[in-house]
Amino acid sequence: MQMPPSPIRKLTPYADKARKKGLKVYHLNIGQPDIETPPSIIQAVHDANVKVLEYSPSQGFESYRQKLAGYYGSRNITVNADEIIVTTGGSEAILFALMSCLNPGDEVIIPEPFYANYNGFAVSAAIKVVPINSSIEDNFALPPIEAFEKAVTPKTKAILICNPNNPTGYLYSQAELEVLRDICVKHDLFLFSDEAYREFCYDGQTHISALQLEGLEQHAILMDTISKRYSACGARIGALVTHNKEVLNAALKFAQARLSPPTFEQILGEAACDLPDNYFDAVLAEYASRRDLLVKRLQAMDGVTCPNPGGAFYAMAKLPVKSSEDFCQWLLESFEHEGATVMMAPASGFYATPGLGQDEVRLAYVLNDEAIDKAMDCLEAALKAYPNK
Amino acid sequence: MQMPPSPIRKLTPYADKARKKGLKVYHLNIGQPDIETPPSIIQAVHDANVKVLEYSPSQGFESYRQKLAGYYGSRNITVNADEIIVTTGGSEAILFALMSCLNPGDEVIIPEPFYANYNGFAVSAAIKVVPINSSIEDNFALPPIEAFEKAVTPKTKAILICNPNNPTGYLYSQAELEVLRDICVKHDLFLFSDEAYREFCYDGQTHISALQLEGLEQHAILMDTISKRYSACGARIGALVTHNKEVLNAALKFAQARLSPPTFEQILGEAACDLPDNYFDAVLAEYASRRDLLVKRLQAMDGVTCPNPGGAFYAMAKLPVKSSEDFCQWLLESFEHEGATVMMAPASGFYATPGLGQDEVRLAYVLNDEAIDKAMDCLEAALKAYPNK
Repeated sequence: MQMPPSPIRKLTPYADKARKKGLKVYHLNIGQPDIETPPSIIQAVHDANVKVLEYSPSQGFESYRQKLAGYYGSRNITVNADEIIVTTGGSEAILFALMSCLNPGDEVIIPEPFYANYNGFAVSAAIKVVPINSSIEDNFALPPIEAFEKAVTPKTKAILICNPNNPTGYLYSQAELEVLRDICVKHDLFLFSDEAYREFCYDGQTHISALQLEGLEQHAILMDTISKRYSACGARIGALVTHNKEVLNAALKFAQARLSPPTFEQILGEAACDLPDNYFDAVLAEYASRRDLLVKRLQAMDGVTCPNPGGAFYAMAKLPVKSSEDFCQWLLESFEHEGATVMMAPASGFYATPGLGQDEVRLAYVLNDEAIDKAMDCLEAALKAYPNK
Repeated sequence: MQMPPSPIRKLTPYADKARKKGLKVYHLNIGQPDIETPPSIIQAVHDANVKVLEYSPSQGFESYRQKLAGYYGSRNITVNADEIIVTTGGSEAILFALMSCLNPGDEVIIPEPFYANYNGFAVSAAIKVVPINSSIEDNFALPPIEAFEKAVTPKTKAILICNPNNPTGYLYSQAELEVLRDICVKHDLFLFSDEAYREFCYDGQTHISALQLEGLEQHAILMDTISKRYSACGARIGALVTHNKEVLNAALKFAQARLSPPTFEQILGEAACDLPDNYFDAVLAEYASRRDLLVKRLQAMDGVTCPNPGGAFYAMAKLPVKSSEDFCQWLLESFEHEGATVMMAPASGFYATPGLGQDEVRLAYVLNDEAIDKAMDCLEAALKAYPNK
């Protein structure tokens, strides 16, 4: 079977060339944070006393799942260790959820723009993604209930959301999540909730998990990862969490076929559950400061629209260009400002509907304020210089 | 979609109960070696200087792939680093190979008995496994070419072998591999070669890789893992290796969708490439001694047939019982010998054809000589005492 190519990677060769020319490239294109991984959790790996590096249990170490249940409890998500399957990254949680709950040919509704790799996992699971449009004009709020109702067919088995959202940064409200709940209950659909960015909500807003929605206990499937939470993307540790026993049983069989999640990284994940409660304070303040700067700079540029994202560490911006893909390539190939340029992700790759997002880009604020400021200087100058508006 | 349950795990609750009764259970049922993981490769993880645990490249660290190419070269398998994709365990290498080379509905021929998880990966990839029978009477040699020819249909896209074989321990000869090559070339099929047990070949026999077969350069796909090689099952580091650029490109897209293999374990894998050449001498001598003891004891039992395996660390035995599944359960539920019992894997789970292997078991010689001797005392006594022969 053919996996769709990653839209984010298309520009990589151009970035390589820009670097070879001696340019500094500001990478706002991928969600790889520069935040230091908490040293205590790296230390836990260094301290691990392993004689025989054995298979771990397919659902993950019991001790880790116990502590994860404690972490979720501290976020008012009540689950027990048996309702958690530790996965190899959030990627595997998504794949297990799709494969466990849908049959080949079934459909999942996803508000677009969405994390492009969902397409890949859908291909792997031989299921169909049905996009419904959320738009930059509406700040990427949840599409109206009518759009969901129109998209539901006898093949529809689930709705998938990412909350807070990648790529839009949108944080769904209680009211929006209740709309989703009602649709899921009415049509007996699963609600897959990718909550990779749970900890990153700004302006005092609270994250609401799909697992907190009353009446959705058997429908809600949480897909999680420690990648962003603890700046530990290389760990490849995630989790599938649900109260639905049938789904847990089905997912466990997929977990057993691949034997185990990686051992050292589970030790790291377990240590992360012991971080002090205030660990996220500084990280959150850092991301909030970056967001404020990035959005302020973007909104001050002529012809640029940028909704203020409520969570995650992404912003979407509409640029005064015909094709953001051409523009992003041009930035790397033909532009420089004070010895530097900037790399962004053209947004068309996050839309499933052809033609949408052509003038939008996603920016990940994973660099510090100084770098973001310089990257915005670049972008501002580039928009002035760009010939194909 | 429904994943088939793991046949090896069916008996786990009975083993738990036996342990609760205070019995010592000799685990010959799974391929979890007791061999110490080389301390130097654990140390490499402890020494890793990681500040931000970033995504690694989807195809694996360049430095690791370079060293892996060196390891393969030392085994007369000529590949370069760009022909290797580092995977999350051998499991992922198998899944990527199936998904990259076959479309849903396509068929792969596998000599049975075979590693039961191939069934699970086939379900994930929505492809059909077509078994052809190898039998204990023939020492599990490759089925005759006629059996392959009979099994080939327009849907057949590949043959999958495990060499040395799990569960049979059979080591394929040059002549057998050339038969496979000829069929693959004739019908334009891929040859998937699971070589997890490459290093474990006995009696001075040499392992021949599918990548060494002349004329098969574009057909051979090596699926590999460090799990057994370095007693590092919990690392979840494997590799897909092929000269076929199209397959590499397709597999890379699957790799990109799941982002990266785990970081710390790649560091461990890279350190393993630096182990001295004589590292395997002691390990091989240890496994050979265990095999000799296990097979000698089994062959000395009344009514037991056990071909001498040429590689891996498994042996298949035919027992004088009606149902090895019932017998294995009875061993855990109703039998003890000097405070102990033994757990084995009923072989029916390794056959795709219903009714085959009912009186066979797989034994993994992953315990030391003393434990194997005691386990065989148990088994011998049990066969005498068992009522349902």
